[in-house]
Amino acid sequence: MTNASPIDVAWMRRAIELAARGLGSTHPNPVVGCVITGRDGHPAGEGFHAVAGGPHAEVAALRMAGDRARGGTAYVTLEPCNHTGRTGPCADALIEAGVARVLYAVPDPNRQAAGGADKLRSKNVHVEQGLLRAEAEAVNHVWLHSVRMGRPFVTWKFATTLDGRSAAPDRSSRWITGEQARADVHRQRAECDAIAVGTQTVLTDDPELTVRDAQDRPVGRQPLRVVVGDREIPATARVRNDRAETLLLPTHDPAEVLRQLDDHHIRHLWLEGGPTLAAAFLRSGLVDQIVAYVAPAVLGSGFAAIGDLGAESIDHLRRFQLADVTRLGDDVRLTLTPLEQRTH
Amino acid sequence: MTNASPIDVAWMRRAIELAARGLGSTHPNPVVGCVITGRDGHPAGEGFHAVAGGPHAEVAALRMAGDRARGGTAYVTLEPCNHTGRTGPCADALIEAGVARVLYAVPDPNRQAAGGADKLRSKNVHVEQGLLRAEAEAVNHVWLHSVRMGRPFVTWKFATTLDGRSAAPDRSSRWITGEQARADVHRQRAECDAIAVGTQTVLTDDPELTVRDAQDRPVGRQPLRVVVGDREIPATARVRNDRAETLLLPTHDPAEVLRQLDDHHIRHLWLEGGPTLAAAFLRSGLVDQIVAYVAPAVLGSGFAAIGDLGAESIDHLRRFQLADVTRLGDDVRLTLTPLEQRTH
Ligand SMILES: NC(=O)c1ccc[n+]([C@@H]2O[C@H](COP(=O)([O-])OP(=O)(O)OC[C@H]3O[C@@H](n4cnc5c(N)ncnc54)[C@H](OP(=O)(O)O)[C@@H]3O)[C@@H](O)[C@H]2O)c1
Ligand SMILES: NC(=O)c1ccc[n+]([C@@H]2O[C@H](COP(=O)([O-])OP(=O)(O)OC[C@H]3O[C@@H](n4cnc5c(N)ncnc54)[C@H](OP(=O)(O)O)[C@@H]3O)[C@@H](O)[C@H]2O)c1
Repeated sequence: MTNASPIDVAWMRRAIELAARGLGSTHPNPVVGCVITGRDGHPAGEGFHAVAGGPHAEVAALRMAGDRARGGTAYVTLEPCNHTGRTGPCADALIEAGVARVLYAVPDPNRQAAGGADKLRSKNVHVEQGLLRAEAEAVNHVWLHSVRMGRPFVTWKFATTLDGRSAAPDRSSRWITGEQARADVHRQRAECDAIAVGTQTVLTDDPELTVRDAQDRPVGRQPLRVVVGDREIPATARVRNDRAETLLLPTHDPAEVLRQLDDHHIRHLWLEGGPTLAAAFLRSGLVDQIVAYVAPAVLGSGFAAIGDLGAESIDHLRRFQLADVTRLGDDVRLTLTPLEQRTH
Repeated sequence: MTNASPIDVAWMRRAIELAARGLGSTHPNPVVGCVITGRDGHPAGEGFHAVAGGPHAEVAALRMAGDRARGGTAYVTLEPCNHTGRTGPCADALIEAGVARVLYAVPDPNRQAAGGADKLRSKNVHVEQGLLRAEAEAVNHVWLHSVRMGRPFVTWKFATTLDGRSAAPDRSSRWITGEQARADVHRQRAECDAIAVGTQTVLTDDPELTVRDAQDRPVGRQPLRVVVGDREIPATARVRNDRAETLLLPTHDPAEVLRQLDDHHIRHLWLEGGPTLAAAFLRSGLVDQIVAYVAPAVLGSGFAAIGDLGAESIDHLRRFQLADVTRLGDDVRLTLTPLEQRTH
């Protein structure tokens, strides 16, 4: 970015705010926000991408702006697409509306959709990239990571006692953490596209794996439920009820799980364990984030929160970066990311 | 407290601040602070108890005030003592100085030392108790707890991975946590009177169990080192060097350990593990505080942070209150207290 003024920064920040409103509902698309100012610099329209199949942010903003977009500036959090999917290319829409200048924060990593900037330039629109890029990447980081890696972003979530137990010797584990932590799990599940567990967790706990409200009623769009492992899941298991789609994956290979989920356009997988399945993902280097809910309680026996990772000495300790610590009622949520991300 | 003015509150708060300066050096005495104002209400003297055998807070403040104490008010965080120990009774000193009014925050729970308020009243000094009592108790809570329970206050400290491992399968455990956490351990050790471990920790890790600075040099008054268990500790073990006193206790009974430490006037025991000894204290209900340093790392195998507590189902989970969560570099320190304290 070379010619951004404080006013440009302010409008881009507004566009990022708008983008964030789409979090959790745009699957499998990114969140995108757009602000359009008229030739006079006054705001003319704004919009965000709310749901896949619905209007893109630019189109929503152009509709609101109408004729006032002509000669104006568009601030977009992601490079305008050049792709005819369920909607037409946004680059064309901006050109037709006569927008003179387009500032976008993040280039589109999606080969299919990229090329919007070039098309705009070919029609003599002034285009600049990179304004508030870090902030705009942050709001979309799961989606960007997924597209760049060519596989779903994986969050391993677990609840544990302070001494690292996820279940008692008799396999009982309800409830280790309190209400606020469990509500947080539902909030975070709601932002994912799929929830996976191993067969043993289904056979032991019979979880429903849906997003539910405080009254335990399923709410909103439900993520895909995924059960990994060879054993049969009885038709009466809650995970097979009709409150959400379910995918049974009779494999032990985490990479194969992610390949199959990619075919289902899953961008963010919420891996709920158990310890065996989570260990397999960790060993394969396929965990992008760990969300641990730690209860202020000790058990002293029972099942470990994570299965064997092959560590023999302390040198084999798998270290992560502590991205966040948040108290939730009597529990603490720790969010960990791979150490490599330190350098970004 | 009935007749406290905002000015009284301000001076008592100052006395509590002064008291806190003694934390870590008054062993086996409490911390105490004192402010004296003259007949005109102006500050005349202040002092705190800095070290056992040194002047009590009231005496230090009276020395500073001199004649100006006559007809004035003394603000003391703890009931003035009525006991001739290494120094004379503070009640007498206040009477001799002609102080007209004494406000103290916390009654002395120590039978030997109590009775100061009664003696003051018998000499027509106006005495009131309870101003800012909760704050004054907080600064002395370990000492008060110890005197009330008739045994040392026990803090169990441990370092753990996020999955509850305190050592790898080959028993190596250095270092799970980072520098800031380890410096915090030394800061907290410095406020205790004794540090205990089981024989196995000595035989495995050969720890020195001293308070050391960033250059790893022993600093200040050293807590008593305590090793619990029947096995012999070689004379070459670091814990037997001359940098601090060491007590070998060939018993497995935590209550007996505390009885013996009480004979040594230990008010605050810092229990550093290992898992076996800590489990014995927990099972006996003799842990008053847990300080856990949690590293953002997983091991997947190795030794659990705490030994067996006899739990069979999740109903046997031992819950605590989460008193504090503090990030220390890349690690997180959780401080837990017994649930009963909720009602205080
Ligand atoms: N506190 C928490 O956050 C939490 C979360 C989840 C579960 N849990 C507890 O964890 C316990 C279940 O633990 P778990 O580890 O047995 O459950 P799990 O990981 O859910 O299931 C293990 C099963 O998954 C299959 N599997 C899939 N990929 C595998 C691989 N790469 N390697 C080996 N097996 C693979 C195997 O079943 P097949 O033989 O069918 O192939 C295996 O037996 C329950 O008590 C549950 O309550 C706790
Ligand atoms: N991460 C941490 O914070 C931390 C802290 C300390 C230790 N550690 C690790 O923990 C490991 C040692 O664990 P540990 O549990 O064996 O050590 P420990 O608790 O220090 O020592 C256990 C020994 O203490 C004696 N003992 C005293 N009271 C007992 C009782 N009530 N019941 C049973 N035994 C009693 C017994 O020895 P006798 O046979 O001699 O009687 C027993 O073998 C080491 O690898 C060390 O590195 C980690």
